[in-house]
Amino acid sequence: MNHFTSLENLDLQLIRELVDDAVNFKRKKACPNLSNHYISNLFFENSTRTKLSFEMAEKKTGMEIIYFDAESSSVKKGETLYDTVKTLNSIGVECFVIRHNQDRFYEDLISRFDVPIINAGDGCGDHPTQSLLDLVTIYEEFGTLNGLNIVIAGDVVHSRVAHSDAKILTRFGSEISFATPEFWRDSSMTMGSYVSLDSVLPNADVVMLLRNQNERHKQQYDEKNYLQQYGLTKERTAKMKPSAIIMHPAPINRNVEIDENLIEAPQSRIFTQMTNGVFARIAVLNYVFNS
Amino acid sequence: MNHFTSLENLDLQLIRELVDDAVNFKRKKACPNLSNHYISNLFFENSTRTKLSFEMAEKKTGMEIIYFDAESSSVKKGETLYDTVKTLNSIGVECFVIRHNQDRFYEDLISRFDVPIINAGDGCGDHPTQSLLDLVTIYEEFGTLNGLNIVIAGDVVHSRVAHSDAKILTRFGSEISFATPEFWRDSSMTMGSYVSLDSVLPNADVVMLLRNQNERHKQQYDEKNYLQQYGLTKERTAKMKPSAIIMHPAPINRNVEIDENLIEAPQSRIFTQMTNGVFARIAVLNYVFNS
Amino acid sequence: MNHFTSLENLDLQLIRELVDDAVNFKRKKACPNLSNHYISNLFFENSTRTKLSFEMAEKKTGMEIIYFDAESSSVKKGETLYDTVKTLNSIGVECFVIRHNQDRFYEDLISRFDVPIINAGDGCGDHPTQSLLDLVTIYEEFGTLNGLNIVIAGDVVHSRVAHSDAKILTRFGSEISFATPEFWRDSSMTMGSYVSLDSVLPNADVVMLLRNQNERHKQQYDEKNYLQQYGLTKERTAKMKPSAIIMHPAPINRNVEIDENLIEAPQSRIFTQMTNGVFARIAVLNYVFNS
Repeated sequence: MNHFTSLENLDLQLIRELVDDAVNFKRKKACPNLSNHYISNLFFENSTRTKLSFEMAEKKTGMEIIYFDAESSSVKKGETLYDTVKTLNSIGVECFVIRHNQDRFYEDLISRFDVPIINAGDGCGDHPTQSLLDLVTIYEEFGTLNGLNIVIAGDVVHSRVAHSDAKILTRFGSEISFATPEFWRDSSMTMGSYVSLDSVLPNADVVMLLRNQNERHKQQYDEKNYLQQYGLTKERTAKMKPSAIIMHPAPINRNVEIDENLIEAPQSRIFTQMTNGVFARIAVLNYVFNS
Repeated sequence: MNHFTSLENLDLQLIRELVDDAVNFKRKKACPNLSNHYISNLFFENSTRTKLSFEMAEKKTGMEIIYFDAESSSVKKGETLYDTVKTLNSIGVECFVIRHNQDRFYEDLISRFDVPIINAGDGCGDHPTQSLLDLVTIYEEFGTLNGLNIVIAGDVVHSRVAHSDAKILTRFGSEISFATPEFWRDSSMTMGSYVSLDSVLPNADVVMLLRNQNERHKQQYDEKNYLQQYGLTKERTAKMKPSAIIMHPAPINRNVEIDENLIEAPQSRIFTQMTNGVFARIAVLNYVFNS
Repeated sequence: MNHFTSLENLDLQLIRELVDDAVNFKRKKACPNLSNHYISNLFFENSTRTKLSFEMAEKKTGMEIIYFDAESSSVKKGETLYDTVKTLNSIGVECFVIRHNQDRFYEDLISRFDVPIINAGDGCGDHPTQSLLDLVTIYEEFGTLNGLNIVIAGDVVHSRVAHSDAKILTRFGSEISFATPEFWRDSSMTMGSYVSLDSVLPNADVVMLLRNQNERHKQQYDEKNYLQQYGLTKERTAKMKPSAIIMHPAPINRNVEIDENLIEAPQSRIFTQMTNGVFARIAVLNYVFNS
């Protein structure tokens, strides 16, 4: 039994095995069999995309889902996360996928439970299955995670994915740069360098766009002209290498981060990322139960 | 693969086959096997009855349901219907049952997706599986859809079912009349004729009541005296042919459209309609995947 | 086919068989097979714990769950409970687990439906599966339900479990006393006696704590000093017999009814109760279908 809470505490070989597993499950249309295991997805923040991706992964492995609705639960009456998990565990739930707005919510849980805890996003911390699916998508494309030139563009300061992806891809030996508007630069960033999107596009293998997290912005920015100034336009795409790919974690603000005509363009892997997310999560489910 | 969006674009022979299939699935208690198919029900308007009827049909065919909750989804954050469907399709959902308040919402989808789209009610447009279950109920009773005398009574102007049923039953060669209070007549109606309920009851084979859609009425009407003036009372029922049946799409406003003692009377097929709805939807699921 | 609405109308031998069944299902990890049966859980009052416990029981017996959400249902539009059940029954649901705020809501249903109705809590009335799981927990511990000394402590007047448990355990020949603060005593109580917790602890086999139902209290009480005055502290626990156990129906107000360090102490059976709840409910499902 393993927990899966962050990529930071895992060694590269293990992460590579998870990537390989995901690619194999996808190619062979074969999944590990986890039937007779009961699982619950505890999403204390809404995230349809991530939640349904986990549910699909769970169904494809034959798991039984006990559906938990945070809105109507005792959590609203002040029950602690520990008590909720303890209760569900007592009735027979054997694995927990949790998204919670508290950073590192899982630390208390993993010290007290001997059933797998999977982090589906903690506060401003990690979102390790999102990072894993990004790795799967890049590896599937290039056959390596080493020596690539990766530009992460947009709202870096508010993005847990940007930070996680930058860290793990740096560990794998790729080069990261950030094409971040000056008003969203993160002064605490210790890796990568700030660049203009136009300057790095010709050398990039991966252009990883981020969602502008408008709900977290204290100051308004010029959203109307954002695409032309900082987003991915057709003109900018023309500068990309033919082999380069476009990624975005979604949901997309159409015609803000990216011209909407590029979303399903040949170079885009945006919906491939979603497909890969299911297989990345199957690899994680297999890991927590079978490793 | 087929979509199923309206009865209007289907030829009568195909519709008859769907009716036959539904009757057979019901009689033989045998259902087609659609296991290993993943389906989602996207209800952007509440409709417990229709939604659970689809879920029962899906479970009886062995399908796997990915539960989608419109309330907590990114749709609330402005995500388009297209993006929602594209996302779910990317994670592996292979069929979509959709209710949406926009007329003909499905046109954009069927031109862009090659997985089945099933219309579970579009705006003021169609509700084709409701019409199909009405056909199943009438056919099961009379062994034909031709040459019957059908009176549709009540709030015709606000009812998508009234319009759809009138059209398809006219195509099958039955005669439709509308017993509609003068304040709800639809001046654009091009088929059937307006009559008083009392005058047509003695000749009717089917008395199809509608729900008074109070939430859509701009002007109040005299609900207290509605039953006596326009509804189905015991006295009026006594004028019906012994072979005639009573239908209602539900939910019922008891003692408004119909005396509540008639709801489960021998002539009523109101709950039979609900039962038939499941088998009509099984026939549709079979059609979209296997025809 | 049986309904399951209250322990009061069941004879002791039958209740003992249900207790035995639950213990056996738990020990042998073997459950009756109820696959191909469709069930719905209709919770018109929130209760995540009870609802998920039923769902787990249903899944462990292989039943198919048709998920019903009271919040988005026609009940909000004024549909009666009878019509909701009749509708679901018409589409094929063969068993109903219902929690409703109306006392004895089930009486109308059991006279009109020939599919099992299971009471998951009615108004201020019964909560028979909770009582059953308490019996299972006590029987599992002591091998008998007779001759035990049981103290029920706390908010007796607002607790349906306290009343049900006291009645059934008295019928089985155990002795009940109530350690209830003077401001929550129930003058209508006809069995048991009011005692101070300190006086009865040395002789108790079971200390059954209740939740302080703050949402029902018209007058405030001194919650801050409640634990010291009336709750289960470490000091009080030291007076208990080594063989005695602590129970609580949960959710717990930590450090009000009980010192939080005792919740998972060796004498506590609080989470065992939750585990037993699943097997008690499996025994009930087996009973309603197979007896």
